[in-house]
Amino acid sequence: MVKSIGVGLLGLGTVGAGVANIIQTPEGRHPLVSEVELIRVAVKDLQRQRKASISSTLLTNDPIEVIDDPSVEVVVEVIGGIEPARSLILRAIKNGKSVVTANKAVIARHGEEIAAAAKEAGVYVLIEAAVGGGIPIIEPLKQSLGGNRIQKVSGIINGTTNYILSRIEKEGAGYKDVLKEAQELGYAEADPAADVEGLDAADKIAILSALAFGGPINREAIPTQGITNLNIRDVEYANKLGYGVKLLAVAESLESNNHKESSLPLAVWVQPTLIPKEHPLAEVNGVNNAIFVEGDPIGEVMFYGPGAGAGPTASAVVADILNIAGISRLGSKNNSLDPLLEASSWRSCNLVKAERIIQKHYLRLKVEDSPGVIGQIGSVFGQNGVSIQSIVQFDANEAGAEIVVITHAVALGKVTASLEVIKTFKAVQGLSAQMVCI
Amino acid sequence: MVKSIGVGLLGLGTVGAGVANIIQTPEGRHPLVSEVELIRVAVKDLQRQRKASISSTLLTNDPIEVIDDPSVEVVVEVIGGIEPARSLILRAIKNGKSVVTANKAVIARHGEEIAAAAKEAGVYVLIEAAVGGGIPIIEPLKQSLGGNRIQKVSGIINGTTNYILSRIEKEGAGYKDVLKEAQELGYAEADPAADVEGLDAADKIAILSALAFGGPINREAIPTQGITNLNIRDVEYANKLGYGVKLLAVAESLESNNHKESSLPLAVWVQPTLIPKEHPLAEVNGVNNAIFVEGDPIGEVMFYGPGAGAGPTASAVVADILNIAGISRLGSKNNSLDPLLEASSWRSCNLVKAERIIQKHYLRLKVEDSPGVIGQIGSVFGQNGVSIQSIVQFDANEAGAEIVVITHAVALGKVTASLEVIKTFKAVQGLSAQMVCI
Repeated sequence: MVKSIGVGLLGLGTVGAGVANIIQTPEGRHPLVSEVELIRVAVKDLQRQRKASISSTLLTNDPIEVIDDPSVEVVVEVIGGIEPARSLILRAIKNGKSVVTANKAVIARHGEEIAAAAKEAGVYVLIEAAVGGGIPIIEPLKQSLGGNRIQKVSGIINGTTNYILSRIEKEGAGYKDVLKEAQELGYAEADPAADVEGLDAADKIAILSALAFGGPINREAIPTQGITNLNIRDVEYANKLGYGVKLLAVAESLESNNHKESSLPLAVWVQPTLIPKEHPLAEVNGVNNAIFVEGDPIGEVMFYGPGAGAGPTASAVVADILNIAGISRLGSKNNSLDPLLEASSWRSCNLVKAERIIQKHYLRLKVEDSPGVIGQIGSVFGQNGVSIQSIVQFDANEAGAEIVVITHAVALGKVTASLEVIKTFKAVQGLSAQMVCI
Repeated sequence: MVKSIGVGLLGLGTVGAGVANIIQTPEGRHPLVSEVELIRVAVKDLQRQRKASISSTLLTNDPIEVIDDPSVEVVVEVIGGIEPARSLILRAIKNGKSVVTANKAVIARHGEEIAAAAKEAGVYVLIEAAVGGGIPIIEPLKQSLGGNRIQKVSGIINGTTNYILSRIEKEGAGYKDVLKEAQELGYAEADPAADVEGLDAADKIAILSALAFGGPINREAIPTQGITNLNIRDVEYANKLGYGVKLLAVAESLESNNHKESSLPLAVWVQPTLIPKEHPLAEVNGVNNAIFVEGDPIGEVMFYGPGAGAGPTASAVVADILNIAGISRLGSKNNSLDPLLEASSWRSCNLVKAERIIQKHYLRLKVEDSPGVIGQIGSVFGQNGVSIQSIVQFDANEAGAEIVVITHAVALGKVTASLEVIKTFKAVQGLSAQMVCI
């Protein structure tokens, strides 16, 4: 008889119930699932109706009871939020238990502290469910791409905004209408700020960057722009020019070829972004997520799937539990950890200022419909070293016209300098929108 | 000072050289790469010019010297083919060394024998590079999806045929012309049979099925049809009806809901397949590969990337080396293995006969352009319980016309029975093409 591995669950919401359901129905799954035993489950309210049928003897409303139970070897934290999640995770680690969490907010902000504590205690903290829902992305980054120099990670990693943008793009519906419907359908929270303002995506790209580039990321320094100010007109123009619009989270190495900088310079940002329709990310619709990784020598790989939901997220949580169960079979000597699975940081990273980032820019200008205005604008960009990919006039009528400029890749500083001159032109009424393109 | 891990390389072709290049330039990669040491390299011809600069003291033309070298802990087999690869792998295992191989042919045919030997010796045999080139798919299947009941794995897993099909579709060029160009560009071998006849894809789906469903697959029993007889006309018709054509490899569980059958019935096949243009697999072009996995509770996930090439394949080989290096840090007790990483089989699978497989079918019939023929044909399908999704007449002229039928999902047997009647009609000159759709 093989020894089972005891799991304590903190939280029995949709994800927690999904995890319990998998553990309780092991037939047809990997045989290791049948060795996972649910020991103790902490819930907020002992009386509430549950989505999983859990013996009431396992339930407690005191998470400490779960963490301190000597039969619990792995603590699964699916409460969410910063506190008490952070303290509970640290206490579990201190108790010598490995932790599995879906909590991106706490990992993006306190990942370093948690990783250091785990290293000291000789336990694992696995976070597959924190990014991309069910998509295997954390473990592949840690265990399958280690031979590469990662150059760039680009992701559609917030399902709510992708659902909203997909519907805006498909139906020409307005942002507010779609958001309201998404809330009614349960795809958006009653308070949608974390999603629509890009904060959730910023948490996740902070986590992905730290893994891909091997160093902790200052979450608060990530320039983040959500979709709340996105104008449907820009979605339409982007479509006409052969682009889709997605809320993209990007982390890119700006290292020069000699690999000599003591701290790796990274450009990390979250922003509505024009994506060429032939790019694989442009086809990612609805609540799906996708993460695109570029590295040397692998080239480009993409991981695609359901970015949220009880089932997919529970699948990711159980994957982490199984990984710990599998490795615990080996019986490690003197608290040593698998260096791929522990994912400690191995270099220092720094986020560069927005001005240093080289990107293609999308600009929409409101202008008088007068001959020569395109030429004037084009000249200014040329004088500032901004090379133009396309400049197109839309919707000319007596009230004026709109000019959409897409630049080649260039530092934001040069675009800003050009715009300062362009805005002084009599024929130019103002800059109506600014985005980036990949 | 951390102990390094000694690697012996069998083969120094493009993939072997790629692996050596990664190991010899660890800067900017995961720090574990710098602990991998190339101990010994077996090559066929000691005099040949190399793509990697290897000290001549490491080279030998005797693979046994590599395998028997006591400093070699991991043997990397990138020779390819069945023998001597199989014997060398078994000898390395017997010597107590873990093996990393990119050899799909030997794993598809002798995987069971090799896995049993590895289990007995307490070593790992890792095969990430055998399917999907650089795409992490083997380890995610083993380590990230174990909580799921896998229902279906569908893959575009042969880069050569996908390159050829993409060009046929895009340019309307003929199969033979594109094949010739692909050969000149190095995307197809001088003898392209293994690729264009679907044998390589069948090897790979055999490997993926065994991992996804947990039981060995009889490679020789996989119904396999390549692209050599694919008519450009069917690609055009498919396009008009909203489909792309891909060489698809599929493995699907036919298990009933009660999970009670002692051996899991699987439908496994390789065949040119119509894929709806909105399906993520339809967008996989050129030499790229993609593997689409459906499971409960994860839903659908897709892994996409370069399916071949020295760099991507070397990335996958190094991932496996790092996994072994990482786990060897733990110092396993009494030859125990991580049950996820060892990937032994845990149930029995059987391949069902083609007649039991439920699919949508594409049929092209040559007919006289006479009124009523569509009605006649439709009636026969109806009488045989075949429900029709669409029936369209193309290219009517004095020489006749062509009718394309796409059925709803139905067992092949019913389609075959219908066709036997339809072929007897005076107005029907023959069945020109038959494919399946997803």
